[in-house]
Amino acid sequence: MTFLDELRALLGPEHVLTGGDTDSYTLDWRGRYQGKALAVARPGDTEAVAAVVRLCARHRVPVLPQGGNTSLCGGATPDQEGGTLLLSLGRLNRIRSVDTDNDTITVEAGCILQAVQQAAEQAGRLFPLSLAAEGSCSIGGNLATNAGGTQVLRYGNTRDLTLGLEVVTPDGRVWHGLRGLRKDNTGYDLRDLYIGSEGTLGIITAATLKLYPLPVARCTALLALPGVEEAVQVLSRARAGFGAMLTGFELMAGYCLQGVVRLYPQQRLPFSGASAESPWFALLELSDSESEAHARERFEHVLGEVLEAGLATDAAIAENVAQTRALWHLRESIPLAEAAFGKAVKHDVSVPISRIAEFVRTTNGLLQANFPGVTHVIFGHLGDGNLHYNVAPAPGQAEADLLALQARIYQVVHDSVHAHQGSISAEHGVGQLKVEELTRYKDPLELDLMRRIKQALDPDGIMNPGKVVRV
Amino acid sequence: MTFLDELRALLGPEHVLTGGDTDSYTLDWRGRYQGKALAVARPGDTEAVAAVVRLCARHRVPVLPQGGNTSLCGGATPDQEGGTLLLSLGRLNRIRSVDTDNDTITVEAGCILQAVQQAAEQAGRLFPLSLAAEGSCSIGGNLATNAGGTQVLRYGNTRDLTLGLEVVTPDGRVWHGLRGLRKDNTGYDLRDLYIGSEGTLGIITAATLKLYPLPVARCTALLALPGVEEAVQVLSRARAGFGAMLTGFELMAGYCLQGVVRLYPQQRLPFSGASAESPWFALLELSDSESEAHARERFEHVLGEVLEAGLATDAAIAENVAQTRALWHLRESIPLAEAAFGKAVKHDVSVPISRIAEFVRTTNGLLQANFPGVTHVIFGHLGDGNLHYNVAPAPGQAEADLLALQARIYQVVHDSVHAHQGSISAEHGVGQLKVEELTRYKDPLELDLMRRIKQALDPDGIMNPGKVVRV
Repeated sequence: MTFLDELRALLGPEHVLTGGDTDSYTLDWRGRYQGKALAVARPGDTEAVAAVVRLCARHRVPVLPQGGNTSLCGGATPDQEGGTLLLSLGRLNRIRSVDTDNDTITVEAGCILQAVQQAAEQAGRLFPLSLAAEGSCSIGGNLATNAGGTQVLRYGNTRDLTLGLEVVTPDGRVWHGLRGLRKDNTGYDLRDLYIGSEGTLGIITAATLKLYPLPVARCTALLALPGVEEAVQVLSRARAGFGAMLTGFELMAGYCLQGVVRLYPQQRLPFSGASAESPWFALLELSDSESEAHARERFEHVLGEVLEAGLATDAAIAENVAQTRALWHLRESIPLAEAAFGKAVKHDVSVPISRIAEFVRTTNGLLQANFPGVTHVIFGHLGDGNLHYNVAPAPGQAEADLLALQARIYQVVHDSVHAHQGSISAEHGVGQLKVEELTRYKDPLELDLMRRIKQALDPDGIMNPGKVVRV
Repeated sequence: MTFLDELRALLGPEHVLTGGDTDSYTLDWRGRYQGKALAVARPGDTEAVAAVVRLCARHRVPVLPQGGNTSLCGGATPDQEGGTLLLSLGRLNRIRSVDTDNDTITVEAGCILQAVQQAAEQAGRLFPLSLAAEGSCSIGGNLATNAGGTQVLRYGNTRDLTLGLEVVTPDGRVWHGLRGLRKDNTGYDLRDLYIGSEGTLGIITAATLKLYPLPVARCTALLALPGVEEAVQVLSRARAGFGAMLTGFELMAGYCLQGVVRLYPQQRLPFSGASAESPWFALLELSDSESEAHARERFEHVLGEVLEAGLATDAAIAENVAQTRALWHLRESIPLAEAAFGKAVKHDVSVPISRIAEFVRTTNGLLQANFPGVTHVIFGHLGDGNLHYNVAPAPGQAEADLLALQARIYQVVHDSVHAHQGSISAEHGVGQLKVEELTRYKDPLELDLMRRIKQALDPDGIMNPGKVVRV
């Protein structure tokens, strides 16, 4: 039997897709990467995943795991050769269990993030991972890329929300590591090695995740700010004044929100006059275990001090759920509006929070010196030092002309990130987009250690080849 | 030149100890492990550590890093052969920098934990790692063992408090990974691989750690509880009612605190009558970013509900700092009092919080069936599912008679831990004490993966041989 015959015998022919049926799997969702797959396998449970991987190992067929196919770095798209088996985790989509006393949930890799959030909420708990793609990305992909999002300031990245994993190794064995323990110091931290390894060391098939109490109240405010320095000072005061109640701190260049309300007239800024024209805005979110009134009282107290100190020029606190949604909707509309600003050269970077103002000032200067007139579309998670520092066409510049400069723009921005001790991939991962960039910015020793780990755990190199690190 | 001559030439003879000068390094602090060292090397900075390791690699001399020598598992004690170089990090004790805007501190491995806490506090920040040995353990040892302690419920283990590392690899190169970033997804998580690896993969020489705002107020209460089931329910209500304000939840068998006040008459329980004779107690700590009055008001509100629901039989809230200290002092006196109860067979275990009541009931039953009359000295960090589940002599039983049963007691307790999906080393690590136990309870696949990593990163096997995993 050929490889494909064996695969069909294993899974049933209806779960092995070939030809045109693979198209929606081999094109990434932004339409930037088009690969080819030998076939798409859709195993239905962990044992079937292991059996497929054993088959691949025997035939030396490379295997690429895919969740919701929402990678922003081409991490889930195969190469052009057509020799890779694309293994979709989509059918592993069960919530296996919820343990409210232990505050944990055990889910399969193919669960959509929103389904995990909803299962938690039905049990009276919060699963705090939250990001733009939550309606379509899978928790397996979140784990594979150590996804971040808007709640990292308080709850951490996906890594920090994970207690245990179930993993299929490249030789098709199953590591049953679904522990629900807050403390476990019995050897090397394999869990965190698989998290963020983008399917290059094994396939995560399930995870035991942390749950939190549902907040009793949430309260949101938009601040108008004179500059990034002031935003950093507001963050510092907010952390001191709100403690762990502070669950969101998003920074947005004025240009972003002003563009959103221009494009979508049904959306409005809660400011008028000079405040509406502010060069920067920040969206703050409090989560309170006590009451709406308490959250509101704290917000007014701390924001009052911030306004008095001249760190913010204006503040609007949402009065109700509808206003809260409207403020978040402004923030979440930026990526959509960006498309209308003209396709941008995108960066997902982080620097120490103490250097972020200097980073923005310096990098904006470098961009204008090198690419006069380009538009800076800057927004992100200030509380994590993470900016989506995007570069859109200059007024009147054709998209294609800007994209022709992409490699040079990357270099200017990433050189600056590097000079500020930052990361060129804060929350999106490496995929195929940044493999080459890593060789430029990573310590060669670190690359050497990564290669040794790859070789130790995937000696035949069949797991998602060409991603993260070249061996 | 011999190895020792070269070592003396490298560090200066005053920093190479031999013979009797090594005695305080080769005996662990509890006096359980006595090893022999070829010499003790005391390099003064990272480059000197790297040079010593290069020398060891060239001569194939095993090297064992040691911090404050407070391991509870013999992790920092060499074997009997006398062929190992003990490398003390004691002279690497500088606070390299504090970055208040980024909420980070960068410290060398030899810094005493308390010195790190104090440096943070001087900068108006909290470094929350807190444990009994904080006056003598080093942060390098905390990192090597992923130490836990009393604040894990809110702030996590040492792993969760670490952003970046500087590491000397077994071939004597230096990985400069001292990043102060909350988000960085550029490849495999080497940081978490070194954390908790107990010096078997490399030597951590410095770390960049997270800081938090100093709480404005702390408030502490002691609760008298009828049983462990009720304690778990109180924990659940406290997590919901206090949210992230809840920074401590310690569970103690009545026997422990009743023993403390019997032994140390200057200490008192804040209860009388039946409450003082309670079978269980819990110590709760709130940290508030708002005010003393607010913490107190919240405490009274939630504890009122807990008492009304019959989950606790009595509660005493500390009225001032002196009373707060007195309550914590009761808890911290348990390990000292234990010595007076008779030397115990100690366990450092964790199970899912939802199974902890069943675990205690079952295991107590098994112990009494196998070793009639032995005393259960149970206390620990309920919020993390972590119990120090110790077994002291039966009334009238000689210590030696109990210790003769040690291996059998380990097996009864650890078999029960394993049956309850728990960990046989929650926060103390593996060291040499539990290497053999791991081969009993760990998935063979997991041991295989650990061995592969060890071989990949330390191919000559010179780093702290015999600890954590046998290759």
